[in-house]
Amino acid sequence: MKIGIIGLGRMGANIARRLMRDHHECVVFDKSADAVKGLEKDGATGAADVPGMIKALPTPRVVWVMLPSGKITEDTIEALAAIMESGDIIIDGGNSFYKDDIRRAETLKGRGLHYVDVGTSGGIWGIDRGYCMMIGGEADIVKHLDPIFKTLAPGIGAIDRTPHRDGHDQRAEHGYIHAGPVGAGHFVKMVHNGIEYGLMQAYAEGFDILRNKASADLPESQRYDLNLADISEVWRRGSVISSWLLDLTASALAKDEKLADFTGFVEDSGEGRWTIEAAIEEAVPAEVLTASLFARFRSRQDHTFGEKMLSAMRQGFGGHLEQGHTPVKKGD
Amino acid sequence: MKIGIIGLGRMGANIARRLMRDHHECVVFDKSADAVKGLEKDGATGAADVPGMIKALPTPRVVWVMLPSGKITEDTIEALAAIMESGDIIIDGGNSFYKDDIRRAETLKGRGLHYVDVGTSGGIWGIDRGYCMMIGGEADIVKHLDPIFKTLAPGIGAIDRTPHRDGHDQRAEHGYIHAGPVGAGHFVKMVHNGIEYGLMQAYAEGFDILRNKASADLPESQRYDLNLADISEVWRRGSVISSWLLDLTASALAKDEKLADFTGFVEDSGEGRWTIEAAIEEAVPAEVLTASLFARFRSRQDHTFGEKMLSAMRQGFGGHLEQGHTPVKKGD
Amino acid sequence: MKIGIIGLGRMGANIARRLMRDHHECVVFDKSADAVKGLEKDGATGAADVPGMIKALPTPRVVWVMLPSGKITEDTIEALAAIMESGDIIIDGGNSFYKDDIRRAETLKGRGLHYVDVGTSGGIWGIDRGYCMMIGGEADIVKHLDPIFKTLAPGIGAIDRTPHRDGHDQRAEHGYIHAGPVGAGHFVKMVHNGIEYGLMQAYAEGFDILRNKASADLPESQRYDLNLADISEVWRRGSVISSWLLDLTASALAKDEKLADFTGFVEDSGEGRWTIEAAIEEAVPAEVLTASLFARFRSRQDHTFGEKMLSAMRQGFGGHLEQGHTPVKKGD
Amino acid sequence: MKIGIIGLGRMGANIARRLMRDHHECVVFDKSADAVKGLEKDGATGAADVPGMIKALPTPRVVWVMLPSGKITEDTIEALAAIMESGDIIIDGGNSFYKDDIRRAETLKGRGLHYVDVGTSGGIWGIDRGYCMMIGGEADIVKHLDPIFKTLAPGIGAIDRTPHRDGHDQRAEHGYIHAGPVGAGHFVKMVHNGIEYGLMQAYAEGFDILRNKASADLPESQRYDLNLADISEVWRRGSVISSWLLDLTASALAKDEKLADFTGFVEDSGEGRWTIEAAIEEAVPAEVLTASLFARFRSRQDHTFGEKMLSAMRQGFGGHLEQGHTPVKKGD
Repeated sequence: MKIGIIGLGRMGANIARRLMRDHHECVVFDKSADAVKGLEKDGATGAADVPGMIKALPTPRVVWVMLPSGKITEDTIEALAAIMESGDIIIDGGNSFYKDDIRRAETLKGRGLHYVDVGTSGGIWGIDRGYCMMIGGEADIVKHLDPIFKTLAPGIGAIDRTPHRDGHDQRAEHGYIHAGPVGAGHFVKMVHNGIEYGLMQAYAEGFDILRNKASADLPESQRYDLNLADISEVWRRGSVISSWLLDLTASALAKDEKLADFTGFVEDSGEGRWTIEAAIEEAVPAEVLTASLFARFRSRQDHTFGEKMLSAMRQGFGGHLEQGHTPVKKGD
Repeated sequence: MKIGIIGLGRMGANIARRLMRDHHECVVFDKSADAVKGLEKDGATGAADVPGMIKALPTPRVVWVMLPSGKITEDTIEALAAIMESGDIIIDGGNSFYKDDIRRAETLKGRGLHYVDVGTSGGIWGIDRGYCMMIGGEADIVKHLDPIFKTLAPGIGAIDRTPHRDGHDQRAEHGYIHAGPVGAGHFVKMVHNGIEYGLMQAYAEGFDILRNKASADLPESQRYDLNLADISEVWRRGSVISSWLLDLTASALAKDEKLADFTGFVEDSGEGRWTIEAAIEEAVPAEVLTASLFARFRSRQDHTFGEKMLSAMRQGFGGHLEQGHTPVKKGD
Repeated sequence: MKIGIIGLGRMGANIARRLMRDHHECVVFDKSADAVKGLEKDGATGAADVPGMIKALPTPRVVWVMLPSGKITEDTIEALAAIMESGDIIIDGGNSFYKDDIRRAETLKGRGLHYVDVGTSGGIWGIDRGYCMMIGGEADIVKHLDPIFKTLAPGIGAIDRTPHRDGHDQRAEHGYIHAGPVGAGHFVKMVHNGIEYGLMQAYAEGFDILRNKASADLPESQRYDLNLADISEVWRRGSVISSWLLDLTASALAKDEKLADFTGFVEDSGEGRWTIEAAIEEAVPAEVLTASLFARFRSRQDHTFGEKMLSAMRQGFGGHLEQGHTPVKKGD
Repeated sequence: MKIGIIGLGRMGANIARRLMRDHHECVVFDKSADAVKGLEKDGATGAADVPGMIKALPTPRVVWVMLPSGKITEDTIEALAAIMESGDIIIDGGNSFYKDDIRRAETLKGRGLHYVDVGTSGGIWGIDRGYCMMIGGEADIVKHLDPIFKTLAPGIGAIDRTPHRDGHDQRAEHGYIHAGPVGAGHFVKMVHNGIEYGLMQAYAEGFDILRNKASADLPESQRYDLNLADISEVWRRGSVISSWLLDLTASALAKDEKLADFTGFVEDSGEGRWTIEAAIEEAVPAEVLTASLFARFRSRQDHTFGEKMLSAMRQGFGGHLEQGHTPVKKGD
């Protein structure tokens, strides 16, 4: 299939490459001319601008937008809509908010355009490992795009088959699903990321407890100086908590058990926040996913104002003087 | 009543003074001779050591121990037990762990001594406001000590009577209760402190949200620069969340709305921790009380090791580079 | 001042009565003719419909809307806007979302109308205790309405003055504040309610721990059968955690220590949810307020689907068979 | 190696079988004669009682105790200690509390006996997949037992090697580690289980959010009826959150997407609780692990007493009547 790709960052460029390896044709555009040139070397047709890309595509045109969510994605889709024709298809493969998908699809529908949202997981590893895709949109359009998804997905590979899968949609075993109508793809990807935060925080807390078991604040007879690299490695084999995130953790700890290259300033992105808002809208208790988000918020501050209030109250009722020293660098 | 008091810190000294104001006689001892002299000026009989205090008391002797919980309280009670006689009474008015009370009472019982645990709330304000007391021990012994408790308690005062109290134990309305057998007093006080942490954290988070509504990270049209001092003051009048902790908060914010004297390094004490352990033993979910304790743990660290792990994992799967800058000083 | 009031529920009717007691004149309307008649008996002028109310008011007209937040408030404000004249003032005293206030004020401004949002706390007790009010809007309009707010507010009363208040806005000590521009009143009230959830949950968890200390699951030597009514009463006197919510708790427990009239099905309203969303927008960690909201979500379900998943996983890796019996009725 | 095994439940029997498959000799005992007979069929030497087993073992004797933690393990170890001889080795392969290990080893040391604690993960799958083992004890004793551990461990298998492992202890890559002195094995296993709770709860909450996206309480345009079986399957391929727990989840959902065989009554065991206590002792914030434990506590109750208190307070300040109906069966 011949497809246009806008946005040649880490994800977009690798998606183009994986498609071309499987003999799809890519017409690519990025605001960085160097990024376009880089892909041309790998066999893509470079476009100088969005209209140029559109002209180079056969109808019905298919354009995959792979840009940061927010204004730039919004503007790009509007620009595409202005020049694309009835029957053409816009894919948003980024991390848009699913309610934006619903709104956009409604607008585009009025012009005869189709909109497909694809939640794409796989990070920098996807080019070789394949991309796990959660797709929202009209069933026939998603079916039309199947060759693209099949190529990008990991495929069945060496992973053990899940029992009882007979009779279920086979696409899931190949690493992509048609999750539902427009927005459903990004909604499922959003929850995926919410879970990701929770899993990461569970490991983080566990290793924090292991590491602080050597703390001088504990009675000497109850201290252990544990080897975190070996622990993460052993848990990869036969334990209940083996996972890909643990594989990555084991790799980081094998390289440097102290993680001295990191300060512990942790970003969050839209999906983690939207997941909690979805939980609230549905009245679903989601303690763990929320605590994971809040831990990241807290990690980016020196002290909260709330903590000062606690100190002020303690002085108020108990005359407790706050210790003057700076925070303990336990994380080091 | 004539009573011995060991430990003349903030709490012990004021308890002695409140007792003497109501014509009880106090024999006092503290390892600081100056502290003893200070109380002598207020009418107490100073003792040079523990045996000296014991000699100065009529039988059955009553000694109130008001020391930090832990080794010093333990040692003092052992020293008392060694020289006191059958029928004498030891009161632990500090913040001992209730399981230690049970153990101690068992030991003392073998020697004919009585043990009473008194959880005492009121902080530096107690001398005038009175002390709220939660008492554990044998009913007849607690009854024998009633004159002491009556004096120390706040009394009915100007506080509105609770409806439906007729037929209930009147001591509660005077500010003290016989909670149950040995340990029950400290257990109730322990949970009191656990709740205290939760209330404090609820206010702290709320004010944090108010304060950060002025954050430059928000769209300008959605920012408010709120006056926290006025807000805390107005909530004292007719709102659902009025409380003594709010009174103290209003006072701190009226003095300095930025709380610039505080860094936000917040201590915790045994009671908060033991409350969570009690919840776990009882299989009672106690999210709020636990989160309040953990917020204090976190406040005393620069970064957790867990946060570094999050950064390491993010780099592992997404190639995300951690922002190099130091934590945002949002608390300032 | 002569004022129109729309919505004569528990809050609206009592607001009208408190205003009339202080010699303001009220023109009232409610979709229930009985509610209107009830107020007429207390001295109000009843209106048959909204236009009738408007006609009965002098210019610049002041109308206080006291309806459930959402569609009915929205519709009422639109209906008012259609017939009111430049310079008139609409007060929304309900629990609207502050972003709706901002939007509405913008629209009304185009027609020369003023919009004031008043977060009102005080519940069923406000008629006698006074209402704590957090007000958003233009400073001169809020000033113009001062006689209304002064009457409704609790006033200084018998509550101890906060130290350091000299030089601060005196309205706060009377129980009302001008929090900021439009929306600020409801924003502050929203956070008030968020804190309220947190305080309530802190008490709830603490009493749960007290109550389950009698559980037969504990070793017999560690059980206490505590008197919750007396404990709540004693904490009202001199303890750090005394509050109005504790007063209400003491009253409920004095009436029936088992709370047998309640099942534990706990509603939540918009403010609690919006508070968490505000925290997320501001990247403020708010564990306690969120856990309090989630505890309510959970209270309204028999079992979550997530809990079934936990059981399924446990069977998957450990062959653990789920206990077949129905949930333990610990709350009884 | 010839080894005694006490306790032939799911774990103990399979451990014996895996050892015998690799040509170790097992002398086995269980209070159930049938269990012993079952193992005899697989080649083990059955013992009629503990002394009989001891007699059948060459010195220095090695006995692996695989019983539920608590009294039965304690009693068995005492019984062994009474008849074993200097130089003999007792292995506790169950889930004992690590502080009990420290105490026991101290006692046994006085009699010349060695104690080794082995945290064993692998559940019902271990016989084929191998057991992930975390070992505490004296280095030379652990080395002496290496043939046993090597056989039981999963080995390197087909799992990708972690980069940077050169120079680290190779045992970890084979699936077992010598974690440290006595107790360290069970401590690491304890934290493993704490993390396990957190991971499980993260998935549970995420799927709960997915499932309730079909809720009739949401606006119709924002509902999705998502296929949870396909979602869990697709996430196994190339997504960031792939894991063994997800494999098990996918299997359960493929079998029955509604999980109708489960009620959602979720047990917890000692390790999850001890992990939180360790976090508290170390002052490590562990929100996610704690919330996961509390979710299980809550799952086993109909309503908490705390929830009734919330309802009572709401009635107190707002006159809110609790909805009379029974909890919504959202989990169904």
